[in-house]
Amino acid sequence: MPLEIERKFLVKNDDWRKLATGVIYRQGYISRTPEKTVRVRVVGSQGYLTIKGKTIGRSRAEFEYLIPGEDAEEMLATLCEKPLIEKTRYKLIQGELIWEIDEFLGENQGLIIAEVELKNENQVIELPAWLGQEVTDDPRYFNANLVTNPYRNWQ
Amino acid sequence: MPLEIERKFLVKNDDWRKLATGVIYRQGYISRTPEKTVRVRVVGSQGYLTIKGKTIGRSRAEFEYLIPGEDAEEMLATLCEKPLIEKTRYKLIQGELIWEIDEFLGENQGLIIAEVELKNENQVIELPAWLGQEVTDDPRYFNANLVTNPYRNWQ
Repeated sequence: MPLEIERKFLVKNDDWRKLATGVIYRQGYISRTPEKTVRVRVVGSQGYLTIKGKTIGRSRAEFEYLIPGEDAEEMLATLCEKPLIEKTRYKLIQGELIWEIDEFLGENQGLIIAEVELKNENQVIELPAWLGQEVTDDPRYFNANLVTNPYRNWQ
Repeated sequence: MPLEIERKFLVKNDDWRKLATGVIYRQGYISRTPEKTVRVRVVGSQGYLTIKGKTIGRSRAEFEYLIPGEDAEEMLATLCEKPLIEKTRYKLIQGELIWEIDEFLGENQGLIIAEVELKNENQVIELPAWLGQEVTDDPRYFNANLVTNPYRNWQ
């Protein structure tokens, strides 16, 4: 089974910005429960349809397919829960690791999350100095949960 | 938007059988609400992932993608509600129309539904003599509803 294993952190300063380039991601959920989510995403003109299973520890099953951007836009507009999640995703390569830093827009503006994908649950990684608190296990930071409880409501 | 427009009927005899050839379909639902369903289907070694919107009259939005059969089997086993829907689908061409006749297995054994896809909601079609009662508008016959209330429970 394809597995996604990742760790998530907040950031404590802007030192990552000078090294990273960003692309706008727009996404929404056709279905989201703790057991499984069905996500539609648009990046540029490309659409993605992604099914994820339940998160257990740092892992979850993930099935992702390329779909026409036009279909994805249609599903975001008509089938996905609002508000949609919009963010700029920055990528930053450090040694063998690829850090993805999501700077959220709209209802989640102000929130920045850095994620790294691991090869296995126990992989030891070097943590860059700009990383803040780890939030891997905090469900408030799941993108699917930012739909109903956006960051703007936390303060 | 891609639309599916169809009519559904019961059958009143077996006259359709001598003209049709059948293939086993196995399918399950990752999500199903009256507003939208996410269906996984396996036919032979091919997988399909299908998102459908709300049925309005005889129409609903439908987005369907080919996926690896292996992924589909994995999702049927781990992410889809049980029981799965299993049926033999027969195809029968009559003039311009393609009739799909589903003979259900397992929990829905005994149920046979004939479906035809239309070009528009008001297309006039010739009804074969073996067709029984029309059930287009009866939600009990939606495949998604046969998961929680299979035909075996109706009697």
